[in-house]
Formats: sequence, C-alpha cells, structure tokens
Amino acid sequence: MDARFLDHPRDRMIDAAIGGLRASGLAGAGVNQVVAASGAPKGSLYHYFPGGKLQIAREALERFGELRRQDMETVMDADGPVDQKIKRLFKRAAKGMEAEGFRLGCAVAGAVADIDEDSAELAPVCEAVLESWTGIIAAALVPLPPARRKVLARFVMTALQGAFVQARAARSTQAVLEAGEIAASLVRSELQTS
Amino acid sequence: MDARFLDHPRDRMIDAAIGGLRASGLAGAGVNQVVAASGAPKGSLYHYFPGGKLQIAREALERFGELRRQDMETVMDADGPVDQKIKRLFKRAAKGMEAEGFRLGCAVAGAVADIDEDSAELAPVCEAVLESWTGIIAAALVPLPPARRKVLARFVMTALQGAFVQARAARSTQAVLEAGEIAASLVRSELQTS
Repeated sequence: MDARFLDHPRDRMIDAAIGGLRASGLAGAGVNQVVAASGAPKGSLYHYFPGGKLQIAREALERFGELRRQDMETVMDADGPVDQKIKRLFKRAAKGMEAEGFRLGCAVAGAVADIDEDSAELAPVCEAVLESWTGIIAAALVPLPPARRKVLARFVMTALQGAFVQARAARSTQAVLEAGEIAASLVRSELQTS
Repeated sequence: MDARFLDHPRDRMIDAAIGGLRASGLAGAGVNQVVAASGAPKGSLYHYFPGGKLQIAREALERFGELRRQDMETVMDADGPVDQKIKRLFKRAAKGMEAEGFRLGCAVAGAVADIDEDSAELAPVCEAVLESWTGIIAAALVPLPPARRKVLARFVMTALQGAFVQARAARSTQAVLEAGEIAASLVRSELQTS
C-alpha cells in the first residue's frame, strides 16, 4: 500500500475496511469500525460512500482483489517453471500470515463467511475477485487445454483459500506450505502428461 | 439433528449458535442472536452458559465438529475404494450447500474468519475440530506411511474448506465437485504408487 494511496481520506476508509474484512469479515467492516479505524468523521464516510456499509465493503473487496491480483501477477510473470511459481504463491501467503500473527485472512473469504440476505449483493463481487485471481493462474497453464486450465487454476485457488482457514485455526503455516507443495506437484504432473 | 437433541433448551441454544456460526461467523452467534434464534429467555442463556458468547461458541464448535465427524465416518467406513469415498465427501458437501441455498458454510471456517484478540481462545478449538476431521481421512489412507497420510488428509481437508468459500461466493457447487474429483485422483495416484 503506497503512501499516496493512504493520503486520501476516502482511500484510508477503504483501507480500514479491507483490514476489518481480513480480521473479522463483514462485522469488522461496518460503518462504526471503519470510522474508528480510519480516524475519519462519520459524516465524511457517508459523503464518500452514500451506499454505507455495503458500498464500502464492495469497494474494499474490489481494491483488495486488485492489489492481490497484482501480487499474483508479479509471481506468475517471473521466469521459471510454473509449478515453482504456484509453490511461491503459497509460500508468500504463508510468510504474510506469519508476519501478521495469523490475525488476518483473505478479505474475500471473510466477507463470504458472513454473507446473509442483507449482504447477498456482495457474493457476485467476491465471485468476480476469485475469478480474476483464478484467471492469472489459468493463464500460466497454457500447455493444457483451456477448459482444464480453468479447472486446475480454480483448484489451486480453492487450496489457497482452504489453507488460510487451516493456518488461522492452527496459527501455523504448515498446512499452507504443504498445500503449496501438493498443488505444485499436481500442476507439474498435469503439465508433464499434457 | 434428532428431535431429542432439540428438546432441551440448552441444546436448542447450541443449535442456534451453530446456525449463526455457519451463516455469519461469530457475529451470528452472539448472545442476542442465539436468544432470538432459540426462543430462550436471555437469563436462561446465562444460566446454561455462564461464560457467555465464548462458551456457547466453543460448545457449538465442538458439537458441530462431532456431528460432522460422525457424517465423515459414515462415508469413510463404507465399502469401496478410498478415492471414491473422498469424492463422496465433496459430493455430500455440495449437495448440502445447494439444499441450503449456499447461505451456510462450515461453522469452523465461520469462526476462524472472525477470530480476534477477544476470541483468540477459540482458535485451538477450531484447530482441534479440523484435526479430528483430518484424522478420519488419514485413517483411510493406511497403505501410505503415517506421516504422508496426515499430510494428504490435511490437504483434502484444506481443499474442502476452500471449496466452501468458492461455493458460497459463486452460489454454485462447481468448485466443490471439481475439488472432489481432483482430491480423489490425487489420493488414487498416491495409493497406486505407494
């Protein structure tokens, strides 16, 4: 998160909402929480986000999705074998979780775990973010037929999401690193036999 | 959930807390939510659960863990090849999610996504439940060396957890069924080469 981004009150609120979603899902990204965490007055929150909680959650999810998409692209666009890049995605996630004391998860998973009738409109936002991440992985699986790329990339994303659940429960990176090894070997063996 | 279980006010409260955790994590399993969903008076909640929200969440997680462990045991104890049983776990999860309109997830994942400083004591409870489920799967992978059984079983559990995130975001069973296919083929190929 660069300093310029944090200089704008609107962006500070988005950033506070991302932190809240990652720490405790939608309950952590409510108007009061965002006001408290961003230091912005409540009136200015409604000025910037007339749609209130759902608008700020939507924009936070989109912003989080974009930031993580860029991270993933950096890993996947580097040189080297695809399976090693897949493993690197998990290693980076593990490193991040450890650095954050296992207090923060994926903002999308945090929102998804809390979606109810009132916040149902956020599900397609979460789906679109997951799709965009899956697309980055799928693009790296070019030797496979397009349909298989998508399925395998989605499975890698599924494993990564599950790894966050495991890591936060166990306050350990073990399941994340193991998942990275297995996902990488799966990708390697599919690419070898393709 | 059998009728006898639901006959006791204390169990009705636990059941309400499980529903809340599955729908919206810890925020859905607060004292007020449990009181409203179970129809019990607030005083009786504190009578049964003097530890309040954290006690009821802990017991709900343990009860949910036990119920799901029994379900998993039923699947894994049946006759047939292990990989087909793994696939069945995902199929059953997919069927359940669809029947519930993708409104409910795993109670453990719901809690994990919301754990903060105040609820940190629930992390080991979630970890123990995930461990007990992993143990059921590991026990079915007997031909593999013990250490590998554990790693592979944990990966299957990781994939299952991630599949819930995907399914709830996309309101579709697709990622769950795909994950079941891939997890099953992974188990099959490891057992073949062991």
